Amino acid sequence: MSKISVVMGSTSDWPTVKEGCAILDQFGVAYDKQVISAHRMPQEMFDFAKQAAGKGTKVIIACAGGAAHLPGMVAANTPLPVIGVPGQTKALGGMDSLLSIVQMPAGIPVATTAIGVAGAKNAALLALEILGTADPAIQAQIVAYRQQMHDQSVESSADLD
Amino acid sequence: MSKISVVMGSTSDWPTVKEGCAILDQFGVAYDKQVISAHRMPQEMFDFAKQAAGKGTKVIIACAGGAAHLPGMVAANTPLPVIGVPGQTKALGGMDSLLSIVQMPAGIPVATTAIGVAGAKNAALLALEILGTADPAIQAQIVAYRQQMHDQSVESSADLD
Amino acid sequence: MSKISVVMGSTSDWPTVKEGCAILDQFGVAYDKQVISAHRMPQEMFDFAKQAAGKGTKVIIACAGGAAHLPGMVAANTPLPVIGVPGQTKALGGMDSLLSIVQMPAGIPVATTAIGVAGAKNAALLALEILGTADPAIQAQIVAYRQQMHDQSVESSADLD
Amino acid sequence: MSKISVVMGSTSDWPTVKEGCAILDQFGVAYDKQVISAHRMPQEMFDFAKQAAGKGTKVIIACAGGAAHLPGMVAANTPLPVIGVPGQTKALGGMDSLLSIVQMPAGIPVATTAIGVAGAKNAALLALEILGTADPAIQAQIVAYRQQMHDQSVESSADLD
Amino acid sequence: MSKISVVMGSTSDWPTVKEGCAILDQFGVAYDKQVISAHRMPQEMFDFAKQAAGKGTKVIIACAGGAAHLPGMVAANTPLPVIGVPGQTKALGGMDSLLSIVQMPAGIPVATTAIGVAGAKNAALLALEILGTADPAIQAQIVAYRQQMHDQSVESSADLD
Amino acid sequence: MSKISVVMGSTSDWPTVKEGCAILDQFGVAYDKQVISAHRMPQEMFDFAKQAAGKGTKVIIACAGGAAHLPGMVAANTPLPVIGVPGQTKALGGMDSLLSIVQMPAGIPVATTAIGVAGAKNAALLALEILGTADPAIQAQIVAYRQQMHDQSVESSADLD
Amino acid sequence: MSKISVVMGSTSDWPTVKEGCAILDQFGVAYDKQVISAHRMPQEMFDFAKQAAGKGTKVIIACAGGAAHLPGMVAANTPLPVIGVPGQTKALGGMDSLLSIVQMPAGIPVATTAIGVAGAKNAALLALEILGTADPAIQAQIVAYRQQMHDQSVESSADLD
Amino acid sequence: MSKISVVMGSTSDWPTVKEGCAILDQFGVAYDKQVISAHRMPQEMFDFAKQAAGKGTKVIIACAGGAAHLPGMVAANTPLPVIGVPGQTKALGGMDSLLSIVQMPAGIPVATTAIGVAGAKNAALLALEILGTADPAIQAQIVAYRQQMHDQSVESSADLD
Repeated sequence: MSKISVVMGSTSDWPTVKEGCAILDQFGVAYDKQVISAHRMPQEMFDFAKQAAGKGTKVIIACAGGAAHLPGMVAANTPLPVIGVPGQTKALGGMDSLLSIVQMPAGIPVATTAIGVAGAKNAALLALEILGTADPAIQAQIVAYRQQMHDQSVESSADLD
Repeated sequence: MSKISVVMGSTSDWPTVKEGCAILDQFGVAYDKQVISAHRMPQEMFDFAKQAAGKGTKVIIACAGGAAHLPGMVAANTPLPVIGVPGQTKALGGMDSLLSIVQMPAGIPVATTAIGVAGAKNAALLALEILGTADPAIQAQIVAYRQQMHDQSVESSADLD
Repeated sequence: MSKISVVMGSTSDWPTVKEGCAILDQFGVAYDKQVISAHRMPQEMFDFAKQAAGKGTKVIIACAGGAAHLPGMVAANTPLPVIGVPGQTKALGGMDSLLSIVQMPAGIPVATTAIGVAGAKNAALLALEILGTADPAIQAQIVAYRQQMHDQSVESSADLD
Repeated sequence: MSKISVVMGSTSDWPTVKEGCAILDQFGVAYDKQVISAHRMPQEMFDFAKQAAGKGTKVIIACAGGAAHLPGMVAANTPLPVIGVPGQTKALGGMDSLLSIVQMPAGIPVATTAIGVAGAKNAALLALEILGTADPAIQAQIVAYRQQMHDQSVESSADLD
Repeated sequence: MSKISVVMGSTSDWPTVKEGCAILDQFGVAYDKQVISAHRMPQEMFDFAKQAAGKGTKVIIACAGGAAHLPGMVAANTPLPVIGVPGQTKALGGMDSLLSIVQMPAGIPVATTAIGVAGAKNAALLALEILGTADPAIQAQIVAYRQQMHDQSVESSADLD
Repeated sequence: MSKISVVMGSTSDWPTVKEGCAILDQFGVAYDKQVISAHRMPQEMFDFAKQAAGKGTKVIIACAGGAAHLPGMVAANTPLPVIGVPGQTKALGGMDSLLSIVQMPAGIPVATTAIGVAGAKNAALLALEILGTADPAIQAQIVAYRQQMHDQSVESSADLD
Repeated sequence: MSKISVVMGSTSDWPTVKEGCAILDQFGVAYDKQVISAHRMPQEMFDFAKQAAGKGTKVIIACAGGAAHLPGMVAANTPLPVIGVPGQTKALGGMDSLLSIVQMPAGIPVATTAIGVAGAKNAALLALEILGTADPAIQAQIVAYRQQMHDQSVESSADLD
Repeated sequence: MSKISVVMGSTSDWPTVKEGCAILDQFGVAYDKQVISAHRMPQEMFDFAKQAAGKGTKVIIACAGGAAHLPGMVAANTPLPVIGVPGQTKALGGMDSLLSIVQMPAGIPVATTAIGVAGAKNAALLALEILGTADPAIQAQIVAYRQQMHDQSVESSADLD
C-alpha cells in the first residue's frame, strides 16, 4: 500500500514527473504511478479518485498540460489533498496549464506547484511534507534534505569562474 | 425533447448564459438548461454527458469560469459537439477561463467562443448553425438573422454624432 | 461533393493542418483542401465562403496565424459552422492567432480549437462530431475512435520507466 | 470629396473614434465616417475598400475591437495606407484588438496605433502626417499643433500643486 | 495550541484571508492569525517560520500580493507544508502575486491556490484536507462539506430565471 | 535624395530590417539606412529626426527591440509619418518591443507594424503606400505587387501534399 | 540646489508621483519637480538630462505611462542614476509602461520600481538609499523609517477583527 | 573591501551575472560575488544583507529567476540600494522573475533592470552610476564608457550589408 499516488495525463508528462518520483525514491517512500487521462479515461479517473482514500492513499500528485483538467477533476472526487503540476507547453510555455490548474473555484482546492520539472520535484517534496505532518521520521528526512541542499548551495560559490 | 442542452458551472454564469438563451428563444428552438458543476457535481456531470446523445440532444453548450473544466469534461464523455463559453473573471479578465477551455489536448475538441456575453450569444448561434447543417429551416433562420444584423449595422451609421 | 472544406492562410499552415486531414482520411470522410488567404485572396475567400453551403459543404475548417482573419471572415460569409485553428507563431507562441480567432463579436461565431497541431486534430474531430449529429455512422466512428484512444491511454502506463 | 475615410465596426466604437474626428475637425480637413462591420457587412466593407482609391480617398482610419478584422480586411482590398485603431475591450483590455490588428502577415500592412482614445487621436494625426507628405500646409499645421502641445506641457508644470 | 497558522503580508490582505478563516471556524478547527510582512518584519517572519513546527503547527497558510515573497520565505524556513494565496492586485490583477508564489525553484514547494477570495477559501480547505490525512474526523467533515456544496449546486438550477 | 529613411537601433536589427529593404529595392525606390541608437546616440537621433523633413524625406521607418524608444523619439522630433517595427526579443518574444512602440500617448503617433520580419516587410510596403498617395506610379506598383502575391497564393494550393 | 530631480510625462502622473514626493518631504530632502514630456518636450527633456549632473543633482526620478520613454531617454543623456516609475494604465494595467521602462538595452540602465503608487513611493526611498550611500544621516533616516514601518506592521495584527 | 556585492540564487545565474561582472572588471571597481539562495540559504542571506552596510558595501546586485525572492529579501534587510536582475526562465521567458522582483510593495524598493544578460550588464552600470554620485572619477568613467558605446554605434552603420 503506497501513501502517495502519482498520476499524469499522458506518457509525454513522464520526463517531467519522473524527476519528482526520483525524490520519492530517494526518501524511500512508496508510491504508485500511472497514466490517467481526464479526457481519454474519464471513468478510470473517477474510479481512481473515489477509491484513493479507501486504499490508504494520503496524497495525490497529478501532472497535466494545456487545458489541464486532471488535477482539478481528481480533487473533485476525493477528500485527499491533491497536488497539481502544470506541464510546460510548446505554444504558451505552460501558462495555459498553470491557469487551468491553479484557478480552481472555491470549494475544491488543488495545491499547485511551478510549471515543469521544478514543479514536479516540489510536488514530491510537498507530498512528503504533508506525510511529515503525521510522520516525524519523514519530517526529519525533509530537514536533512534541506540541510544537504543548503550545503551544496554554500559550496557552489566556489564554482563561480 | 430538446436538441440543445445548456449547462453552466454555477448560477453566477447565468447572467452571461441567458444572453445566448435569449437567441435560442428568438429562433424558437427548444433547449434545456441547468447548473452542473464539474467540481461540485462530478457524478451528475458524467451522467449528463453520457446520456445526452441517447436523449436526442444534438449540441451541448457549457459555460464556466476560472479553471473551467466543465466544457472539456462534458466533451470527454459524449460524442456530441460541445461548445465552451469562457466566463469573464475578476482577477484575470477571463484569460484563465479561455485557456482552460480552448487548449484541449488532441482527441477531445471543445468548440470555444469568445469570453463573456459575446461568447454566450455566439455559442447559441453556433449551436443553431450546427443544427442547421441538417435542418434547412434553421439555416434559413440564420441567414435571415444575419440579414437583420446587417441591416441594423448599415442603418447605425446614421447614429454617428 | 465533400461535406468538409479545409482552408488555410498559406502553405506554411499545412504541416499543422495535415495532422487534422489525416484524421479525416482515417474516418474515410471526403474533404477538399486549399490555400485561401484572407489578405492576399480576399475575393476568392468571399466566393468560397458564399458558395460553400450551396455546394453541399456542411462544415468548414480554417487555419491561420498571427492576425488570423480567415476563420472569422469566412464565417461572416456563410451560415455554416466554421471551425478556427490558431496557428502557432514564432514571436508570441500563437496567442495572437488565438485571440484573433476566438474573440469574435456577437453575431458571427467561430468554433475555436487549441493552438497548433492539437487544434488541427481537434478541428477534424469537431467537424466529424458535427456531421455525426445527423449521421449515426460517423457518430459511431467517433465512439470507436475514442475507445481506441482510451485503450491506448490505459496501456501506456506500462511505458512508465 | 474627402481625403480621409473613417470607418468603425460598430457604433460602440464611436466614443473612441470621435476623439480622433475632433482633431480632423480642428485641422479643417474633410473626412467621411461610417459604420462598416467586417463581419456583419462584409460586402459593403469590400466595396468600400475597393472603391476608396478611385473616389480620391488618400488614407483610411479603421477602428474595431476584439477579433478586430476590419482594418486588415480593408487593407487587403486597397492600395491606400490603412490606419488601425484597436478598441479597448472589457475582458482583455484591448490586447485582443491590438494583436488582431498589428500582427498582419507580410504583404498587407496596417499602421497600428495605441489602444483606445489615444490611438484614435493618433490615427487622426498620422493620417494628417501622411497627407502632409504631399501638402505643405497640412505639415505646417502639424508643426503648429505640436508647438501648442509643447507649450501646454511646459506650462502644466505650474499645476503640480 | 492551534494546528493551522494563518499569516498575511498586511492588513489589506485580511478581507481576502478572512473568507478562508470563516471556513476554519465553520469546521471548528483552531488557528492563529497574524500580520507578518516578509519585507517589513523579516526577522519576525524567520522566527515564526522556524518555530512553527516546534509549537505543534501542522500547516501554514500565507497570503500576500505583488512581489509576494511571504509564502516562499516562510516555506524556506520550515519543513511544514506552506499554502500560498496570491492576493488580487490593482495593476496586474494578481498575475504578479501568482507568479511570485507558484514559480518556486526546486527544493522549496509552496502549495499555491487561486488568486483572491477563492484561493483563500481553498487554502483553508486544503489545510483541512492535509490535517484530514491523519485525522479521520476532519476528513469526514470535508466529505460532509462537499456533500453540502453538491446539494446547493444541484438545487441552484431552480434559480435560473 | 531619398524619400524613405530607414533607421534601426543596432546592427542586430539588420537581419530583420533588410527584409523590408529588399522590398524597397524591388520597387526601385531610393532609401538611406543607418544605425541610430536612441540610447547610445541620442543627439544624432535628434538631429536626424529634426532634419529629415528638410532633406526631402517623406517617410521614416524605425526598428528597435526591447524598451524600443527609437520610433517614438524620432516621431517626437519630426512632422513626418514614422513607421515603427518591433524587433523580436529573446525573453518576451517582442511583446516588450511592441508595447514600447505602439502605446504612444496622444499627440505623437507611430505607425506600428507586426513584430519581426513580417513587420519589416510591411513597414516597407506601408512606406510605399504612403508615397503612393501622391505618386500614382508607386500606387500602381503596389497594385501589381499585390496581384503577384495573389497569384502565388492561388497557385500554392497545388503544393498541398 | 536639490539633489533629487523628479520629472513626469504629464500632470496625469502627478497623483502617482506625489506619493513619492511626500516621502521626500518627510525625510526633509530637497527636490525639484516638473512635467517634462519626452514626446512633447524632447528638447527640454534633453537639456534637463544633460544639465542635471552639472547642477548638482545626484538622482533623477522619472515617471511615465504607456510607451513610457521618459526614464530611458533621460538616462541616455546623463551619467546619473535614473529611477523609472511605470504609470498604471487603463487598457493594459501598466504592463506597457513597465516593459517600456525596464527592458532597456545593455548600456543605459533605468532603475525600475513597481507600477503605480507603490513604485512612486519606492522610487523616493531608492533615491534616498542612493544618497544614503554617501550620507550617513540619510542612511540613518532610512533605518529609522524602516523601524517605524516594522512597528506599524507588528501592531497591525491587532486590527484583524 | 569591495563597494559592490554581487549575489545570485544559484550557479545557473552565473552565465548571466558574469556579463555584468565583466563591466565591473573593465571599470576596475572591486566587487565580491557569491551564491546566496534566498530559499536554500535563508540565514546566510539574512546575515549577508544585515552586515553589508557595516562592511563598507555601498550597492548590492542580486540576480534570481522564477519566484525570485533574493533581491527583495536582501533589500528588506539592508538600507543599501539593491539592484535586482530578473533571470530569463524556460517556461515564461522571465516574466515570472521580472514581476517577482519589480512589484515590491511600498517601503522596500528594488532597482530592477531588464531580464537576462542586458539586465546584468545594466545592473553593473547602475551600481557604478550610484557610486559615481559620490565619486567623480567613476562618473567620468561612465561618461567615457558611453562615449565609447556611442562611437561604436556610429561606426556600426558601416556594417549594414
